[in-house]
Amino acid sequence: MKPDMDDATRERREAAMRELTEQRDNYRKKEGISKGRRGLLIVNTGKGKGKTTAALGLMLRAHGRGLRVKMFQFLKHDTAKFGEHRTLDMLEIPYQGLGDGWTWRSRDLENSAELAAHGWALAREAIESGEYDLIVLDEFTYPLKYGWVAWAEVEPVLKNRDPLLHVIITGRDAIPELIALADTVSEIQPVKHAYEQGIGGQTGIEY
Amino acid sequence: MKPDMDDATRERREAAMRELTEQRDNYRKKEGISKGRRGLLIVNTGKGKGKTTAALGLMLRAHGRGLRVKMFQFLKHDTAKFGEHRTLDMLEIPYQGLGDGWTWRSRDLENSAELAAHGWALAREAIESGEYDLIVLDEFTYPLKYGWVAWAEVEPVLKNRDPLLHVIITGRDAIPELIALADTVSEIQPVKHAYEQGIGGQTGIEY
Repeated sequence: MKPDMDDATRERREAAMRELTEQRDNYRKKEGISKGRRGLLIVNTGKGKGKTTAALGLMLRAHGRGLRVKMFQFLKHDTAKFGEHRTLDMLEIPYQGLGDGWTWRSRDLENSAELAAHGWALAREAIESGEYDLIVLDEFTYPLKYGWVAWAEVEPVLKNRDPLLHVIITGRDAIPELIALADTVSEIQPVKHAYEQGIGGQTGIEY
Repeated sequence: MKPDMDDATRERREAAMRELTEQRDNYRKKEGISKGRRGLLIVNTGKGKGKTTAALGLMLRAHGRGLRVKMFQFLKHDTAKFGEHRTLDMLEIPYQGLGDGWTWRSRDLENSAELAAHGWALAREAIESGEYDLIVLDEFTYPLKYGWVAWAEVEPVLKNRDPLLHVIITGRDAIPELIALADTVSEIQPVKHAYEQGIGGQTGIEY
């Protein structure tokens, strides 16, 4: 597959694949739970670049520890196949696009609201399924901000979730109620951006 | 490997593995270069959580597009095997710890300076090797801030690098010269953190 890969890296891969099952078993053992383990609600917000990529990085870290991870993307079309999706496929980490690929710019607010409500129903099902240890709700701040999904409906689902389930929510303009409920909140501010210099989006960096 | 994985996810994985070689070939074709492709210098700084994980997320995205990726970690010991390292091993993405695992808290400044200088020599070699499309210098802001590695030595290496090579630098307190040279800079501010509520680091989230 990678004929130019050095022996040390290949050995690391083989060891990592062997260890994954063991990590999975360990993660779910009760002994782990007694050591102060708990599920966090993490919010990555602000106008800067890095909110979704930081969530992707956490997925990568969690996967390596044997956590069962899933990502829902509220603004991506389910057929989107960006760089991150290709790597998630290699890792067999499931993800699901919930938007129409245009919601972001759409003036058809009724359609956007319907899509968001449908997406939340699927995300809620996953949260309540017990099948995952970490769930990412990418760009979910917008449905909350625009009222497409009522906070009154989301709050009890988050509060009553399995106490070991991590949930990560990304997007600009997180509503105060979400920030109040979260355990960890990072606000990413743009200091400068390549776009401002007229540099277009780069494959592998922006998508 | 994952007997509980659904068929759709398994099919996605098989397709992704088949497509990776093709992505690699495409990425390096001259046609791509003529479409405004260029290597970016990206800096993730600030006191909030997400600087390194956002870099990991970019590595995941870049890998999916066939970019040849490597990460150097200036403060991690080379034997560190956190969740992210395990997944990078599965993907055969190389990384290298350059610290002694204690540099962060060390009072032995001479040792820290030596380690940083040695690390920079290795990172520089990789930057100049032509073997990578994206290189992450994780926590490299500290050697620059403390003067363990002189900016006068780093600046020409970054400026004269292959114009298609992406470099990502993470860490608090990025020096103004680095910010001035960068294409994209994100500053991550902590709004709140689970630690403040007395919640300890969680496996798969913090490490």
